[in-house]
Amino acid sequence: MPRYKLTIEYDGRPYAGWQRQVDEPSVQAVIERAAEALCQEPVTLFGAGRTDSGVHATGQVAHIDLPKAYGGDTVRDALNAHMRDEPVVILSAEEVGDDFDARFSARKRWYLYRILNRRAPAAVRRGRVWWVSKPLDVQTMNEAAEVLAGTHDFTTFRSTHCQAKNPIRTLETLTVMEGPEDEIHITAMAQSFLHNQIRSFAGTLKLVGEGRWTAMDVKAALEARDRKACGPVAPPDGLYLTAVEYTNEPKRTLPPYPGAD
Amino acid sequence: MPRYKLTIEYDGRPYAGWQRQVDEPSVQAVIERAAEALCQEPVTLFGAGRTDSGVHATGQVAHIDLPKAYGGDTVRDALNAHMRDEPVVILSAEEVGDDFDARFSARKRWYLYRILNRRAPAAVRRGRVWWVSKPLDVQTMNEAAEVLAGTHDFTTFRSTHCQAKNPIRTLETLTVMEGPEDEIHITAMAQSFLHNQIRSFAGTLKLVGEGRWTAMDVKAALEARDRKACGPVAPPDGLYLTAVEYTNEPKRTLPPYPGAD
Repeated sequence: MPRYKLTIEYDGRPYAGWQRQVDEPSVQAVIERAAEALCQEPVTLFGAGRTDSGVHATGQVAHIDLPKAYGGDTVRDALNAHMRDEPVVILSAEEVGDDFDARFSARKRWYLYRILNRRAPAAVRRGRVWWVSKPLDVQTMNEAAEVLAGTHDFTTFRSTHCQAKNPIRTLETLTVMEGPEDEIHITAMAQSFLHNQIRSFAGTLKLVGEGRWTAMDVKAALEARDRKACGPVAPPDGLYLTAVEYTNEPKRTLPPYPGAD
Repeated sequence: MPRYKLTIEYDGRPYAGWQRQVDEPSVQAVIERAAEALCQEPVTLFGAGRTDSGVHATGQVAHIDLPKAYGGDTVRDALNAHMRDEPVVILSAEEVGDDFDARFSARKRWYLYRILNRRAPAAVRRGRVWWVSKPLDVQTMNEAAEVLAGTHDFTTFRSTHCQAKNPIRTLETLTVMEGPEDEIHITAMAQSFLHNQIRSFAGTLKLVGEGRWTAMDVKAALEARDRKACGPVAPPDGLYLTAVEYTNEPKRTLPPYPGAD
């Protein structure tokens, strides 16, 4: 069965999240239904990032095995035609080797968290940014973000429901910068993330931007390794899975804790 | 009664347009209801641009007379609080002289038309861009746009329902350029526009971008002064009223055909 790598964009609002669920709509189920309409048989999709309800993606990646070699462009266009009524699209589909695993071969996952920082709430961007009315200091937020970068036990910054065995992650990038049109953009990159990790960062960095916390408070929270030391978790609205990077290396050379985002 | 200049952002999708209507939701009615909740008496809003159903704004301007001098920030915040459930926000409110008329004093209206030009449909941007799957040539579109700039009889490019007496307008700016993330941006500026004028431009320029029309075809269509010579009208999704500019000059010095957009 030929394997396809799908790059996917979606608006997360109508869905309970990426992952298929019994009673609730999910992005995975939407795409699987489209693939079943194409192939006339059940198929299973494997995604790189299991985004939560309301979280968006502009560069989610998944793999899927199809019974025929349709050609990537045909797969992309056929799936999109079957998903016409859903805010989910296949940006590209390409045939890959059967050693490609969207989840376990992923080397870098990139996320963007968008804060709309102005007095007036979001209108055109409603549901797609986190509105924070109080002015935030981007510079001090970015300094506090530097405290979090690197390899740490991120117990403070993961959901109590996080199923990963190991709370240690290597955060390769965490930056805060001005975006366009009153936005502040938090960019995060790691091989994998813990559950709610970036939303926990965003909620905590907002406290820094407001002047209620310092970078030292963030350091103390990190070192506490205690979920109760975290700032409030930011809403899903501002979070986007923007890219997933792969290499051709075999899976066994990867670090020991992938896939627990 | 103190007069306020309101700068307004909205997602046009839930509304039949800017203008208040008997049986359908409108942006004007949403803001008037919020102002009535604030003032406990009926108020009327006057907008600079009567945007159609589904058309968005990031810089609509309106004026409103309120029975008390609340202060601009109070007006902005109170109206926004009353509109919490609607994708309509007041970006700013400032007290102005009673010779300020949002519609008739407007000297420049700026519009942006966003085309998403890629093979995959819109997902995150659904309803807020016009999706065109066939690759468009931005350079030839921009050359054709130059044909339309200037003072012309725009009968070809206005709706048959347009109520303006005079079909002549001076189009000060019409440019086509690459935007971010697979977008093509058409920017238009004039003192006033005819009904459906920019959507008629966008639909026609798309034909040029596809190679089906040349700049000479656009010139011939303009010179025909015949609505039937126009390309298809582009959907409202991609259209934004982005700014309205005013001067302090008295109304009588303005050119003779304002307000018919």
